[in-house]
Amino acid sequence: MEVEEVVCLPRLSRVAVCGGTHGNELSGVYLVRELLKAEKEVMEKEEEEEEEHPSVSMVLSNPRAVQQCRRYVDTDLNRCFTRADLNGPTSGPVPYEMIRSRELNAKLGPKGRSGAVDLVCDLHNTTANMGLCLIANSDCDWICLHIFRHLQRQMPDIPMRYIHFELSKKESYSLDSVGKHGFAMEIGPQPHGVVRSNVYTAMKAGVQHMLDWVCFFNSGTLFEGESVDVFTMIQHIDYPRDIGTRNITAAVHPHLQDRDFCLLRPEDPLFQTFSGETLRYEGNEPLYPFFINEGAYYEKGIALSLARKRRVMIPAIRVQTEQERQAHVRELASEEEDGL
Amino acid sequence: MEVEEVVCLPRLSRVAVCGGTHGNELSGVYLVRELLKAEKEVMEKEEEEEEEHPSVSMVLSNPRAVQQCRRYVDTDLNRCFTRADLNGPTSGPVPYEMIRSRELNAKLGPKGRSGAVDLVCDLHNTTANMGLCLIANSDCDWICLHIFRHLQRQMPDIPMRYIHFELSKKESYSLDSVGKHGFAMEIGPQPHGVVRSNVYTAMKAGVQHMLDWVCFFNSGTLFEGESVDVFTMIQHIDYPRDIGTRNITAAVHPHLQDRDFCLLRPEDPLFQTFSGETLRYEGNEPLYPFFINEGAYYEKGIALSLARKRRVMIPAIRVQTEQERQAHVRELASEEEDGL
Repeated sequence: MEVEEVVCLPRLSRVAVCGGTHGNELSGVYLVRELLKAEKEVMEKEEEEEEEHPSVSMVLSNPRAVQQCRRYVDTDLNRCFTRADLNGPTSGPVPYEMIRSRELNAKLGPKGRSGAVDLVCDLHNTTANMGLCLIANSDCDWICLHIFRHLQRQMPDIPMRYIHFELSKKESYSLDSVGKHGFAMEIGPQPHGVVRSNVYTAMKAGVQHMLDWVCFFNSGTLFEGESVDVFTMIQHIDYPRDIGTRNITAAVHPHLQDRDFCLLRPEDPLFQTFSGETLRYEGNEPLYPFFINEGAYYEKGIALSLARKRRVMIPAIRVQTEQERQAHVRELASEEEDGL
Repeated sequence: MEVEEVVCLPRLSRVAVCGGTHGNELSGVYLVRELLKAEKEVMEKEEEEEEEHPSVSMVLSNPRAVQQCRRYVDTDLNRCFTRADLNGPTSGPVPYEMIRSRELNAKLGPKGRSGAVDLVCDLHNTTANMGLCLIANSDCDWICLHIFRHLQRQMPDIPMRYIHFELSKKESYSLDSVGKHGFAMEIGPQPHGVVRSNVYTAMKAGVQHMLDWVCFFNSGTLFEGESVDVFTMIQHIDYPRDIGTRNITAAVHPHLQDRDFCLLRPEDPLFQTFSGETLRYEGNEPLYPFFINEGAYYEKGIALSLARKRRVMIPAIRVQTEQERQAHVRELASEEEDGL
C-alpha cells in the first residue's frame, strides 16, 4: 500500500472577502455590507476571537461603481492587478480604477510579497447559467482546490465547477491574484443590477463554508487527497459582427443558451443571426462552453469561452506545525531577498 | 338576438416601431436595426407598396444611450412625453433625453394632434418573468386591444397579458403616448445589456403579427367583438430600505421571484431580508404582481407593481369607409379649432 504524502502549508491567518469589484454585480455588494454589519455587532459584543479563526477583512472594492450601479467608472477594475499595473509609472490622467487597484494592493498585498493576505475571495455574478464557480489562475493551488471540494460537498444542490485561467502571477490581472491564494466566486445566472434572493443565499452559504474550511484547516484538520475536475480556459469566441459598424449580427443560438458546461461538439449550433440563420461551431475539438452570453463581455468581444476538462489529483494537506512554519518563513525571506 | 354594434375607426396609415428607447434593452435595438436593413433592401428593389400597407417608420429612439448600452444618458427618455415636457418652457442645461423627446414628438407627433402617427409600438425588455405584455394608457383603445387578441391567437406558446396604466393623454409620459394609438411591447425575462435569441425571436414575431393585423384592418376585415383580460396597475411596492443610507435591506422573496401574474394573497411572502427574515404582503386585497424585481426600477423605488384583473368587452371593429372618414376628418378639425 502506498503511503500518501501530506503537503504541509502555512496557516491562513488573514482572509479578505471582496464584493463590488464590479459595481453592478449585486450579490457581493449586499453580502459584504451584511457581513460588515454582522462584524460590527460582534465587535460591539467584544467577543473573543478563537485561535483557529482567521482575521477576515470585508472589502467593497469599487465604491464609486457600486454607487452608480455600473460595472466600472473608467476601466474594468478586475483587469488592473498585473505587476505592471500595480508597480509601473503613471502619466497623464489616471483612471479611477487604476488608483483604486493600487489602494487595494496596499491594503491586501503587496501582490507576490510575504505581507499579502493569505486568501482573497472575490465575489462576482454572471448573467450566464454557470451555477457556482471558483475561478483561479492556478490548477495546483491546493488551498483553493480543497476549498472547492469542501463547497461541493457542503452544497450538493448547486452545480459547482472549478475554472482555471492559465496565467502566471506576473500576468494575472484579477483582484484575487493579490493574495497568496485567491479565487473569484462567480454565481449566475443573475442580471447585472439585480439581486436575486436564491443567488444571494448561495453566495452567503459559499462564503460561510469557505470560512469554516479555513478554521478547520487552521485547527489542524487533515484533508485527504482526492481528484477534482478542472476546466481550463482554452479560447474565447466573439459574436459575428458587421465589418463596418462592429455591431453584432447574431445572438447565441437558443440551443446553446444556458447550456454552460454542456459539451459543445463540432457542427453544433453556436449563433442565430438576427435574420434567422444558424451558424455552427467550426472547431475540431469538443470543448466545454462557459460564460455563454455574459452581459459584460459584449464589449470585450467574448460571446462564450471554451474549456478543456481534466481530472487533477490533489494531495492530502494540513496546516504546518510551528517548527515547519519557522523553516518556511526563513525560506520565504531568502526568496524575497533574491527578488523572486 | 342582439345585433352587435360595429365600431368604425380611421385607417392606420402611419405606424412607428421604436426600439432603444432604453439603450440597454437590446431586443428592440437589434430588431429595429434588422428591420431598417430589410427596408433598405426592399427600397433598393423598388417594390411597390400595396394599398393596405401602412407606411412604417423604424426609429432608434435614444441613439446615445444605445451607443453607451445604458438605459439613458441624463434622464429616463420614456418619462419625457407628458404635454408639459413636450410643450413647456426650458431653462438652464436641458437633459439630452428632453431634447430627444421633442425631436421624437416632432417626428411622430405632435402628441394629441391630427398630424401624429396612427400607431406607435415601442419595444422594451424587462428582467422580470413577464412573457410578452402590451402596456397601454387606455383600457378602451379598441385598436390596441384587438392587436393584443390577434397576437395572443397567433403566438399561443408565449404567455401574454395586457397591462393598463390609468393615465390621461395629458399625464401620459411614455413615447407610445405620442401616437393616436400606442403601446409598449415589453418582453422578459432578459438581463439588460444582453440579447437572448428566444426573446428577440418572440419580439420579431410580435411586431410582424402587429403589422399583419394593421394590413388586415386597413383592407376592411371585420374583427369580432370579444372579451379580454386587462391588468390595471393599482400600486407600486418598494424594497425595504435602511432609513439612513436608503440602501435596500431585502430582496424579493424566492417564493415570489419569477411569479409575475400569479395572484399574491395577504400574508404571502414578499421579501427576504439579507439576514434571512421573511417579510409578508400586508395588503388586504389579493392582487396580481408584475415587474417583479425589474432591474431598472431599483432607482425608482419599485420592487414590484400590483394589478387588479378585470374582463373588458371589446366591440367588433372595422376600418371606416371613405364617407365615414370624411365625416370624421371634419369632426377632428372642429375639435382642434375648439382646442380640445
